[in-house]
Amino acid sequence: MPTAAQLKIVTSLQQKKYRQQHGLFVVEGAKALQELAASDWFVEAFWVTEDFMRQHPEAAQWDPQPEVVAESTLAKVSSLQTNHTGLAVVRVPKESEPIRAKDEWILLLDSVRDPGNLGTIIRIADWYGVTRIICSPDTVDSFNPKTVQATMGSFLRVAVSYQALEPLLAAADVQVLAAVLDGENLHKAKLSPGGGYLLLGSESHGINAQLERFVTRRLTIPKFGGAESLNVGVATALFLDALRRS
Amino acid sequence: MPTAAQLKIVTSLQQKKYRQQHGLFVVEGAKALQELAASDWFVEAFWVTEDFMRQHPEAAQWDPQPEVVAESTLAKVSSLQTNHTGLAVVRVPKESEPIRAKDEWILLLDSVRDPGNLGTIIRIADWYGVTRIICSPDTVDSFNPKTVQATMGSFLRVAVSYQALEPLLAAADVQVLAAVLDGENLHKAKLSPGGGYLLLGSESHGINAQLERFVTRRLTIPKFGGAESLNVGVATALFLDALRRS
Repeated sequence: MPTAAQLKIVTSLQQKKYRQQHGLFVVEGAKALQELAASDWFVEAFWVTEDFMRQHPEAAQWDPQPEVVAESTLAKVSSLQTNHTGLAVVRVPKESEPIRAKDEWILLLDSVRDPGNLGTIIRIADWYGVTRIICSPDTVDSFNPKTVQATMGSFLRVAVSYQALEPLLAAADVQVLAAVLDGENLHKAKLSPGGGYLLLGSESHGINAQLERFVTRRLTIPKFGGAESLNVGVATALFLDALRRS
Repeated sequence: MPTAAQLKIVTSLQQKKYRQQHGLFVVEGAKALQELAASDWFVEAFWVTEDFMRQHPEAAQWDPQPEVVAESTLAKVSSLQTNHTGLAVVRVPKESEPIRAKDEWILLLDSVRDPGNLGTIIRIADWYGVTRIICSPDTVDSFNPKTVQATMGSFLRVAVSYQALEPLLAAADVQVLAAVLDGENLHKAKLSPGGGYLLLGSESHGINAQLERFVTRRLTIPKFGGAESLNVGVATALFLDALRRS
């Protein structure tokens, strides 16, 4: 049974400050736990319900071996309304090596504040084979429990890092595509193959002018009806889809 | 100032049962209120903060005239964590005339349970000029406050109705496209212009077999990476985008 001290630490990991202090974050949900167990990520602990062990006897072989806890214990530390399966306490990975955007698409996110939106974007990036996202420092933490949850396991395959985007773009020697509301029609644009940066801002504020001056191509998802905008996750999907069509 | 009885009714509208009983639903957020005031929808009451009236003096001309309420009053009846602007109590519209899917695309949703997902889908439909959505009876209510909120005002332009999809499809004399995981590549498919039904199911269960037998074309969003699936809102956007490209 987890000690009171352990419960306190795991609960604290809902806050960014404590995730950074401990270098740990929490993953919840049966499928994500199975994917984690099969990955090379460093898991400090698996806490699972009896019910989960009954349904997944192979988990007895996991490293580390899962500890069975009561659902009421999970309820105390979980960020979810209900968690019938379990959670993992996972070490935050080291920043991955910088990669160059010559041959692959890197997603740049400016000020995406909603945890669910970031998780959805990570999942979409993973679907389209984009393995790297660079976020402005004011973008929500990718190890926020709501973000991890919304990735549906894709956090394992997409590296997310944080840095000021302005110097990054100022030094860029690749094409910089951006989603804007008054650019070239994305359906008609001939997109060059290869790679580069794809820049998206939060839907309410768009892309800030300091960044927009580095954009080499301003593109717009054509609209056929009355809505004023699309959510940034949906826009990401439509852009990556268009890039993969080219 | 609203009476205790009025507050009780407005609070009750967070539940479907009371929305149906009173024939009313609640809309929150400054932009949605402005759009409502400019629409021909029947608004029973606008309750707004002093702050809202200061920023939108033109609201004094709205019909009905807004009643100024304290933020603490809004907090009591709101479905949101914070509401600094106001809400409208709106009459649920009559079911619109049945339309034929010969010349336009109608979205069919099977078992979409998440209120936010449905709201996002309504917003996406509006972006792509789709004005009609027909939902299976077990799909979440489109006047759920979270759904209305997520539509970002698009509930005004997209009619959502509920009926059993099986008899509807059995009687269909139009093409029926469906999003499935093992169909024809959506990027390569030549889509016929015109209209028809586009059928999407909830991501976890896909489309049930009773409906799938009426599908004339099974289509799949091509995948380039590791994610197992996309959320139903994102899938809707990618399908409507593909249809508007054709």
